[in-house]
Amino acid sequence: MTRSLAILGATGSIGASTLAVVEEVNTRAAARGEPVPFTVDSLTANTDATAMIALAGQWRPAFVAMADPLAGAQVREALAGSGIEVGIGPGACDAAAARPTDVVMAAVVGAAGLAPTLVAARRGATVLLANKECLVCAGPLFLAEARKAGATILPTDSEHNAIFQVLGDPAQVEKLILTASGGPFRTASADQIAAATPEQAVAHPNWSMGRKISVDSATLMNKGLELIEAALLFDMPEERIEVLVHPQSVIHSLVAYRDGTQLAQLGCADMRIPIAHVLAWPSRFETSVQRLDLAAVGQLTFEAPDHARFPALGLARAALRGPPAAPTVLNAANEVAVESFLARNVGFPEIAAIVAETLTQASRRGLDGALASLDDVMAADAAGRALAREEVARRAR
Amino acid sequence: MTRSLAILGATGSIGASTLAVVEEVNTRAAARGEPVPFTVDSLTANTDATAMIALAGQWRPAFVAMADPLAGAQVREALAGSGIEVGIGPGACDAAAARPTDVVMAAVVGAAGLAPTLVAARRGATVLLANKECLVCAGPLFLAEARKAGATILPTDSEHNAIFQVLGDPAQVEKLILTASGGPFRTASADQIAAATPEQAVAHPNWSMGRKISVDSATLMNKGLELIEAALLFDMPEERIEVLVHPQSVIHSLVAYRDGTQLAQLGCADMRIPIAHVLAWPSRFETSVQRLDLAAVGQLTFEAPDHARFPALGLARAALRGPPAAPTVLNAANEVAVESFLARNVGFPEIAAIVAETLTQASRRGLDGALASLDDVMAADAAGRALAREEVARRAR
Repeated sequence: MTRSLAILGATGSIGASTLAVVEEVNTRAAARGEPVPFTVDSLTANTDATAMIALAGQWRPAFVAMADPLAGAQVREALAGSGIEVGIGPGACDAAAARPTDVVMAAVVGAAGLAPTLVAARRGATVLLANKECLVCAGPLFLAEARKAGATILPTDSEHNAIFQVLGDPAQVEKLILTASGGPFRTASADQIAAATPEQAVAHPNWSMGRKISVDSATLMNKGLELIEAALLFDMPEERIEVLVHPQSVIHSLVAYRDGTQLAQLGCADMRIPIAHVLAWPSRFETSVQRLDLAAVGQLTFEAPDHARFPALGLARAALRGPPAAPTVLNAANEVAVESFLARNVGFPEIAAIVAETLTQASRRGLDGALASLDDVMAADAAGRALAREEVARRAR
Repeated sequence: MTRSLAILGATGSIGASTLAVVEEVNTRAAARGEPVPFTVDSLTANTDATAMIALAGQWRPAFVAMADPLAGAQVREALAGSGIEVGIGPGACDAAAARPTDVVMAAVVGAAGLAPTLVAARRGATVLLANKECLVCAGPLFLAEARKAGATILPTDSEHNAIFQVLGDPAQVEKLILTASGGPFRTASADQIAAATPEQAVAHPNWSMGRKISVDSATLMNKGLELIEAALLFDMPEERIEVLVHPQSVIHSLVAYRDGTQLAQLGCADMRIPIAHVLAWPSRFETSVQRLDLAAVGQLTFEAPDHARFPALGLARAALRGPPAAPTVLNAANEVAVESFLARNVGFPEIAAIVAETLTQASRRGLDGALASLDDVMAADAAGRALAREEVARRAR
């Protein structure tokens, strides 16, 4: 009954929510005199040694890994004599994923999550997928490897988890409808958006998130990346995935069936809800998260996304229709562009412009082709970054 | 692949929607060169001979039954020589249900639907349940017989069908949330409601329905009866079923799980959607019903029901907590009270008052006890009607 768990990216916000759910469901089970649902076998992080030392003390995992060498040395020193093995460097994070745990929460942010998540998938683990890059940058490769190994991939992102919860026979599905808050500039004019500052862009209305992903939410690129993820995860052509702006973020996504029915998952904006779902799947856990009270919410609103003010969605669709590595290039270019925006080197509307130009250049030079190996992924990613940096430089001049 | 179908109540609105779906899915299958999903074996109706003659000509069933003798004679004459057998009287409707069809649409309105639907359940058919009285008046009996015979009961009412579509493991369910349009008096003051005329009461905002059920929608007794149905159908205690007023009738109901997730079924207000679902279940049919476009709808609103202006919900809950036949008495009393209101013998707020008084009297006299047989059902129904008529007479004086 007790399953062992590895958390890749344990000190981030998804890691914290995962441990909060594990703590609650373990405590409830213990209070009932039942075996706890989870033991925490391994935790990984990048640089936050202080947080990792605290987590290790609380959870007593068998193994912790720090990607950053200095942080790793600090954790190793703090945990000396504790009996907890400490690995250092990116290879140690892969080693955490390779341990024979039942479940792996893949919550590393960014391209760094790719390699360890692939390791977990390749050994046939149950992977709770919260890392975007596995699908956006390496989707066809990642899914093929997971299928080959018999891994179970459970979507943990709130939108994809919502779809997963109401997805029946794919042959009966007419379309997937991804909801989007619309971000902080939903009601802003084109002029206001042109003048947007990093401070305005990172102020997300509903979810508390990091700076990069907050900017992605402001450009709607976040939804574009999710559209790519959904297309791969649910094997659905781009034209059958719709984006619906829904500022209250109460309906987390919908599936439309060919008989006119739409099924939806709703809840408060709390990542513990999808996390509890994938941790318990195919059952459910009782949790104490705040319950949705629609009468108290009062009103839900919906609107079509405005492609003129938010061109990122169209770019993501174009990348999906392109060669296998076009989404990899799109993602790399977007990271560079957002970084440049946050560093005040380019303006807000230039983020999409840089991505668009990078996609064009990559296609022209044939840099968006195959995705047969992790090397291909890395090459497309590097090409996207290099081209985007050129474009940033050109614009900054 | 082709299944045979009996429609009990073929000339009513559910009957018409059922035949519209059957026509569409049969036509689509034929166009693909596939066997049609349904043959229409038998049709029943009460009095509408003209409509039945037309349906018989179009669908060429093997058997039709008319409950009303005069209408039956008219249909028999019109179909003479057609090869279609015509049965006359309520027993003929039971005979239609007894024929060895794969599927029975139970769409007779009112207590008249009880006997033939029970016949279908007892022979282990797949019963598409659109008749309220089977559950409200005879729920424990009906469900026990269906279980014993191995019948499959598929909820066809839009709210119960919505719940059925998103209901997973009942052990994980925290509550069921039935949505209610709120009816034509949702925003009316207590004084306006006190002065409500039958004309005002039958003007339902979203669904086109008969007069009796429109008044039930205005009092919210319709939702009270659905609450009783849901409690029986899904074996859920009354206190775990909530009613949520949602004037747009887009979310047809929700299921709240113990992990904080709510799942919902949405769609346009078109009965062909739940009917297509139960006809195809566990698969789905492609249909041409209008698709829900939430961006075009723009806004969904929600509010808690007001028990002061709409006491019917509380009465239904009280009946559910009472002895087995209390809902039977409630339903009978409500029918008499609504009839009296439509005949202008009593005012609108007296509908609930008459039902409340009838429940009290029936309980005092022990008339709401067992429900072990159809005779018990009929006795409780008769007692409820008699007591309610006394109460109407007292008030009309």
